[in-house]
Amino acid sequence: MRDDVPRGPGQPVVVVSTLDTKGRETAYVAARIREEGLDVLVVDGGVLGEPRGITPDIDHASVARAAGTTLEAVRASGTRGAAVEVMARGLSRVLADLYRQGRCAGVIALGGAEGAVMAARAVQALPLGLPKLIVTPVAAGQRVFDPFVGLRDVLLLHSVVDILGLNPVSRPIFDNAAGAIAGMVRARAARRPAAGQDRLVGLTMLGNTTPAVTRIADGLEAAGFVPVVFHSNGVGGQCLEEMIADGTFVGVIDFTTDELTDQLVGGYHAAGPHRLEAAARHGVPQVVVPGCVDFFVTGPRESVPERWRGRPQYHHNPALTLVRASRDEMVEVARLMAGKLNACRGPVVVAVPLQGLSIPNTPGGVFHDPEADAAFRVALRDHLRRDIPVVEVAAHINAPVFAETVLALFQGLMQEDPDRSPNGAVS
Amino acid sequence: MRDDVPRGPGQPVVVVSTLDTKGRETAYVAARIREEGLDVLVVDGGVLGEPRGITPDIDHASVARAAGTTLEAVRASGTRGAAVEVMARGLSRVLADLYRQGRCAGVIALGGAEGAVMAARAVQALPLGLPKLIVTPVAAGQRVFDPFVGLRDVLLLHSVVDILGLNPVSRPIFDNAAGAIAGMVRARAARRPAAGQDRLVGLTMLGNTTPAVTRIADGLEAAGFVPVVFHSNGVGGQCLEEMIADGTFVGVIDFTTDELTDQLVGGYHAAGPHRLEAAARHGVPQVVVPGCVDFFVTGPRESVPERWRGRPQYHHNPALTLVRASRDEMVEVARLMAGKLNACRGPVVVAVPLQGLSIPNTPGGVFHDPEADAAFRVALRDHLRRDIPVVEVAAHINAPVFAETVLALFQGLMQEDPDRSPNGAVS
Repeated sequence: MRDDVPRGPGQPVVVVSTLDTKGRETAYVAARIREEGLDVLVVDGGVLGEPRGITPDIDHASVARAAGTTLEAVRASGTRGAAVEVMARGLSRVLADLYRQGRCAGVIALGGAEGAVMAARAVQALPLGLPKLIVTPVAAGQRVFDPFVGLRDVLLLHSVVDILGLNPVSRPIFDNAAGAIAGMVRARAARRPAAGQDRLVGLTMLGNTTPAVTRIADGLEAAGFVPVVFHSNGVGGQCLEEMIADGTFVGVIDFTTDELTDQLVGGYHAAGPHRLEAAARHGVPQVVVPGCVDFFVTGPRESVPERWRGRPQYHHNPALTLVRASRDEMVEVARLMAGKLNACRGPVVVAVPLQGLSIPNTPGGVFHDPEADAAFRVALRDHLRRDIPVVEVAAHINAPVFAETVLALFQGLMQEDPDRSPNGAVS
Repeated sequence: MRDDVPRGPGQPVVVVSTLDTKGRETAYVAARIREEGLDVLVVDGGVLGEPRGITPDIDHASVARAAGTTLEAVRASGTRGAAVEVMARGLSRVLADLYRQGRCAGVIALGGAEGAVMAARAVQALPLGLPKLIVTPVAAGQRVFDPFVGLRDVLLLHSVVDILGLNPVSRPIFDNAAGAIAGMVRARAARRPAAGQDRLVGLTMLGNTTPAVTRIADGLEAAGFVPVVFHSNGVGGQCLEEMIADGTFVGVIDFTTDELTDQLVGGYHAAGPHRLEAAARHGVPQVVVPGCVDFFVTGPRESVPERWRGRPQYHHNPALTLVRASRDEMVEVARLMAGKLNACRGPVVVAVPLQGLSIPNTPGGVFHDPEADAAFRVALRDHLRRDIPVVEVAAHINAPVFAETVLALFQGLMQEDPDRSPNGAVS
């Protein structure tokens, strides 16, 4: 989803909060943003009480109505979780409407545990590039990023103290939050609108495929394409899929498809069941490489589940351990990959390196297992549609010759399809 | 740690990156910050190669030297993790020195998986209120906040795409990052220096004690104190302890000490073994309440470990389940609390409500267990130093009379100690 609403002068910064408990602090932040010369529009997502010390521009009854219900019904919904769910829906609708009307130059939200997640759900419905900042004490500790960030460029600021009171600890943090959103809104206003003529190509990478993908990206640039590289860590792959569906790319080089293995075994880099499907569905030309499908990712060394303890492991860093996929898992991944590629409506080529799919998968490396890799290749060929070419290269995945081959295959696909428009529709 | 270095004109924004892989992108961000009229100082934390397309002000050899070693030794250290560890130490030293010299108005870091954690370690050594922003693709998914945020007001921006290449997806995100740090640095420069005369009081709260703590905070304000409220969720309590040790508070009302129970059983809100120790060690007057020690916190309902399944549970939200502490655990918590308070070098009072320690701990509530609560009280009295008063109030923890009692006890302590200086030293 692109940030393509025209940027008129005086577009307000939208301030979201639960004003029954955070009215005073919200008023303070709004005043700081106004001091920067920007307009402010305050939206109340609070369920329980009335605003304290501030009058919102869009009140909580309107937010409930935007969710197709009433504040009374939300209050009667029984659990805190159910109420938040409904208000998040209403807030998403309110923010999306404001954005479309040119009345949202960016969003800043102040939230506690529930308020932050509610606001996060709503800002995730807004496009990339539109400033979105959440200030909350719960962006810390053992909580995970996903509910706050999703697939978007959300900024999170740990408030350190609770959002309750203006004091010498909280004020500098609120000042910084107001400064950050104001600075981002100014940066957005100063951006030249995109020319829209770039021939963008989506790529996927991990540390284990960085040498190859860097070389391919350089080659794409030299050929007049604009490479956009995603980190295929479970979120990056989903972002790629979403942007493919939005028509962002003229083509895709899905070089690092490890997320399929993680999806299969339940690894950290699982990207959901729809990975590797958007390009197929939308007919976007793609070269697919089984980069890093020979391993999956799990947590710190000492937390590796019992069932994987006996496997070859690579200690990537204190937080992540890579575990070698077994022969049977490799066959399953091949079947999964083939099934998804068989649905391709556009041109597709598969390229497979014969001498290792990741850095430790090389003679002497901990993931060296030529037998499992061969089983993968056999299964892939067996299950793949007969008209989809599989190009095997007698090289390691990071060998220059493999990168050059992938680049040449991609350019070949694009030449087959020279008039392809950049919006993803095959012309 | 306070942000108290004088803010001279022209203090640069420090840009931290690994320039061997992210040189071009870092140069882009630095240029955007300079366009805002701010000075920039670039620090290279990259281990492997030489800077690409940019010349740092402080090079990676200097960062290694700041860690007491050489770049060659770092490169020879064997694992990626070990190298990052050393460079993080060097970077922390470099940033702290720049800050003390008045050459750091804020820090922005661009990092991949390792680079982001390395930069995070370094910015966490800087004081609260100093702008600190990290842009990284790994601030998403199932990763946890702790390594990135620690106890500080760090802003994290999910870069969506890898920090590799300037394109229509990455440029708006980098523009926003530059705008955010510039806006924060301006906000900091505009801040009036703190008068230093505020009589700050630290308080701890959870949703379960909000009614009482709000009332106490209002009362403190009316009495000329400035309340600073922490969310006792495992991080908030640690932040409180750190600020007590820094001499921030004239007194503490540690109303919500649930983190002790989590520490004991291994719950989500564990705050480490030193919770409830700083005020005792530094002689800061405190009123301590066993708020919410009757439960601990674990994950989503379906993930509650087998050993706790049979316990009374409260489904706080989809991500958190509260579990009732058993009689034996309550006795252990009392022993733990008494041991810590017995070390108090300053005045201390314990206040205990007799009719429930949390919202669901009330007749008919899922955590109602008067027998376990009574066992807690007996154990606390048994183990507590004889001269520490325990005030028991025949009310629920959120009853107005309990809040008023705690407030009166605190004011009593402060009158005993009227000349206490705000820097935490007993005069």
